[in-house]
Amino acid sequence: MCDVCGCAGGEDLVRVEVMHSLLHDNDHQAAHNRAHFAEAGVLVVNLMSSPGAGKTRLLEATIQALRGRLTIAVIEGDLETENDARRIRAAGAQAVQITTGTACHLDARMVHAALHRIDLGPVDVLFIENVGNLVCPACFDLGQHRNVVLLSVTEGDDKPEKYPVMFRAADLMTVTKLDLMDAVGDFSPAVATRHLRALASAAPVLEISARSGAGMEAWIDWLVAERARCG
Amino acid sequence: MCDVCGCAGGEDLVRVEVMHSLLHDNDHQAAHNRAHFAEAGVLVVNLMSSPGAGKTRLLEATIQALRGRLTIAVIEGDLETENDARRIRAAGAQAVQITTGTACHLDARMVHAALHRIDLGPVDVLFIENVGNLVCPACFDLGQHRNVVLLSVTEGDDKPEKYPVMFRAADLMTVTKLDLMDAVGDFSPAVATRHLRALASAAPVLEISARSGAGMEAWIDWLVAERARCG
Repeated sequence: MCDVCGCAGGEDLVRVEVMHSLLHDNDHQAAHNRAHFAEAGVLVVNLMSSPGAGKTRLLEATIQALRGRLTIAVIEGDLETENDARRIRAAGAQAVQITTGTACHLDARMVHAALHRIDLGPVDVLFIENVGNLVCPACFDLGQHRNVVLLSVTEGDDKPEKYPVMFRAADLMTVTKLDLMDAVGDFSPAVATRHLRALASAAPVLEISARSGAGMEAWIDWLVAERARCG
Repeated sequence: MCDVCGCAGGEDLVRVEVMHSLLHDNDHQAAHNRAHFAEAGVLVVNLMSSPGAGKTRLLEATIQALRGRLTIAVIEGDLETENDARRIRAAGAQAVQITTGTACHLDARMVHAALHRIDLGPVDVLFIENVGNLVCPACFDLGQHRNVVLLSVTEGDDKPEKYPVMFRAADLMTVTKLDLMDAVGDFSPAVATRHLRALASAAPVLEISARSGAGMEAWIDWLVAERARCG
């Protein structure tokens, strides 16, 4: 019993269900986006991670590595700024920026609106760089074929255990910023993978440094194989 | 015009307003929590950041630094696991773990339920370690006196610009993992501070490495001063 308010203490945590109908509408729009992607014959990859895990840096390196082989375009999601879209264009690919204002994730309707600002004709792989957030984006289907979740070595190898909804949604987990592993000192890719497996996920795990180029070949091979399968 | 669906393209992004009444109820509960805190004479600090920015590590170092001077307790928020509460108890402070399941933030009701599992009597400073998320937690008042936002040097100095809602809410910004700054190579505390000031924030900025101890003294001084002011 609480002295100040007289209310009962204990385990009365609340679960809010307000999102239900919103998610239903989103699934409908996502299915529609999928029809767009099938029509264009494009592989669509949704990139998700914490803020600053290296999504844009990985995309810059990917555009560079695939030049002359596959054509990339990017839908960028951020609360504010066009910075990431500018970086992608400077790297030589089409980019459309969605600024969500206060929204913590992209939804299928935002992506659909962005599709009308991209020429999908020449595109082989469309990346959607979601808002940096290891929770909410996992709950919104955008119509993508694959989810790729980045985990940078600076965040700690416990993250799949602590953010299970996100990591369960991953079709591929990439351990990024491999070049910082020695400086960090206490990140184990094996431990991160063990936590992923504990979620009953069989998703492959790739260790990458976009800065040094380490692991980029396996990432490119994965993309090319997925493109052959889904695009 | 869209070939697949015939719908209008362009800027028809949607703003969802479903959160309004939820936030109203939350504000009411937060005011109630504030009454609890005033009754107990405790300073309450809400720690927010991206996943893996070093919130728990900073708390461990803070408990150590304040031993015999101020008594700390911690409410831990995570989607899953009791790991952080265990770390805090091992460091010698009371800790209560809230596991939110799929919820991306703590709300005032969750905190209130946790209050009934803490003995606030001997406590001088109560930290609420929010869910690792640089977006959603900023929108929910928990009844705290101060918001502290951590920005680790590995995340990039552009984050205040890209996540303005969170950084506008900060009463103090701490740049963490200072010991990794050389390895990262492209983080400038001055640039991060400039982006913070562009949000019309006058919040102080402290540079800290919980690992090396650099900057801990200024952080402790800030806490002691705020405790004198609010507790």
